[in-house]
Amino acid sequence: MNEHSTKGAYVDSGKEFKRDTNYIETRITRDGADGFSVEPGRYRLIAARACPWANRSIIVRRLLGLENAISLGTPGPTHDKRSWTFDLDPGGKDPVLGIERLQEAYFKRDPGYPRGITVPAIVDVNTGEVVTNNFPQITLDFSTEWTEYHREGAPELYPEDLREEIDTVNRRVFTEINNGVYRCGFAGSQEAYEDAYDRLFTALDWLEERLSSQRYLVGDTITEADVRLFTTLVRFDPVYHGHFKCNRNKLTEMPVLWSYARDLFQTPGFGDTVDFDQIKKHYYVVHEDINPTGIVPKGPSLENWHSDHQRERLGGSPFGRGTPPSAAL
Amino acid sequence: MNEHSTKGAYVDSGKEFKRDTNYIETRITRDGADGFSVEPGRYRLIAARACPWANRSIIVRRLLGLENAISLGTPGPTHDKRSWTFDLDPGGKDPVLGIERLQEAYFKRDPGYPRGITVPAIVDVNTGEVVTNNFPQITLDFSTEWTEYHREGAPELYPEDLREEIDTVNRRVFTEINNGVYRCGFAGSQEAYEDAYDRLFTALDWLEERLSSQRYLVGDTITEADVRLFTTLVRFDPVYHGHFKCNRNKLTEMPVLWSYARDLFQTPGFGDTVDFDQIKKHYYVVHEDINPTGIVPKGPSLENWHSDHQRERLGGSPFGRGTPPSAAL
Repeated sequence: MNEHSTKGAYVDSGKEFKRDTNYIETRITRDGADGFSVEPGRYRLIAARACPWANRSIIVRRLLGLENAISLGTPGPTHDKRSWTFDLDPGGKDPVLGIERLQEAYFKRDPGYPRGITVPAIVDVNTGEVVTNNFPQITLDFSTEWTEYHREGAPELYPEDLREEIDTVNRRVFTEINNGVYRCGFAGSQEAYEDAYDRLFTALDWLEERLSSQRYLVGDTITEADVRLFTTLVRFDPVYHGHFKCNRNKLTEMPVLWSYARDLFQTPGFGDTVDFDQIKKHYYVVHEDINPTGIVPKGPSLENWHSDHQRERLGGSPFGRGTPPSAAL
Repeated sequence: MNEHSTKGAYVDSGKEFKRDTNYIETRITRDGADGFSVEPGRYRLIAARACPWANRSIIVRRLLGLENAISLGTPGPTHDKRSWTFDLDPGGKDPVLGIERLQEAYFKRDPGYPRGITVPAIVDVNTGEVVTNNFPQITLDFSTEWTEYHREGAPELYPEDLREEIDTVNRRVFTEINNGVYRCGFAGSQEAYEDAYDRLFTALDWLEERLSSQRYLVGDTITEADVRLFTTLVRFDPVYHGHFKCNRNKLTEMPVLWSYARDLFQTPGFGDTVDFDQIKKHYYVVHEDINPTGIVPKGPSLENWHSDHQRERLGGSPFGRGTPPSAAL
């Protein structure tokens, strides 16, 4: 996602941070009801490793083994007011789409596209148009519409019998945590910030309790709910704690959540999608209005992500009757 | 101290942070060699609780029991580009000096005073002029020139037989730690910041080692060296960790230094001079160029400063053959 408001500033003085949640809601489905049917090789997922919302789609694609069905383009960690760019690719162009700025694919879809140029986005390789940037639906459709192309042993990340509970957990995690950290960081007043801080830590305390007796958020295997929480937790100490002032404590100071986060980090498909350097660079360079020097902190020390998490004692197993994905491509 | 450069900015783009270390070096001594002799009731110490350099003088005054000999005026935590102000006092004026801005006392001494208006400063109450703002000398003179007015049982903070070692430790603590955190926070380039960060944590690792086998920095009682280190350590997690990007780890993550800091905090004369709210407000509001929103973090959680430090097992005792000061005035 790209948090840009059309003003090019993140903090709106005196105001609470409000996320623009209007996305291109076209779906890619088996029945092609929206004009885009599931078809291997036709689509390219554009997802910056830095971005938590895009990171979700990279994790799910990998857990399900969709690498051969849906290719991946990765914009660099920083972007300007207009667009994410393919600055890490040879010649500064995405090698499949041949574009420098993701904005070009949005404008192919709608020459007057009025909102932020966000990741993740899925582009139709044949036309070069963005099909959708509706991030919460993208990962669910990977799980439920692309089943024919899942790898053998792929986990069920959104099983029917757990959907209601997953949806409920996801709602609270989204408003209070995924978006809650931004509400702290982009608060336009001391009062808005303090309210946001209290909401965030109330929700983290709830998770600390919930996860003390169960290994995963819902059921006894990894699900979509764990993916969504993970991408915020992994950014917590490197970015949100200092940059967004989410500093009651570090993640490492909440023993249950810290073990839970390390358990996922060490599960194939999670930690192997994380690039801490890109993550830190993104936030500290892009948000000029809260970090005008653009200096990126050297800390925190991160080697402890590989330490023993001891979550197996709670039962459950990450892939249930399935298997982990093979080493990262 | 006031970190203002004359430009009114803290960060000098592309450059390493350099502290202006020119102070008014007049001394107050027993022999009155500089024209100012030790005389109870004649001088007023102006020291903002927020400021680490001023905090030293408040601690030493209290440890030595100089409260009746030297009165204390306390500017509020924030200041503008011109001066610290007495905004917390009734009518916004220091009740003894009758001034709103500390600058007035500097201008009485020198109408064209060209440098920053810093705390601590000692003012001659009879004339309203600043006598000195030379912070490293102020506390040493409290210890060595004002002996006649020390309370009964006052500790020797700068004993002759330990001066050489205290001076050596103080030099490294000043350049690498007291000033080292500012060198991180006000670095004008990524490279200058990273060098500053490495220097800081190298020195903190040295202290973590040194203090693992001895309770105090020099000798087996508190000295001037402990006072100087303490005022930086107590600000580390609330301010330097996030605001100055000194974030390899929190103080609470260095077990020896964290116990040492709590031991001092719980010693009468140290923790009872600390006002965390003023400390946070000072840095986050005054340094607009690194925190333009002016929002003050609500964290970190601080109740753990009162937890058991277990440093007694290393031997030594804070006041040696002396006694602690009585409850804070």
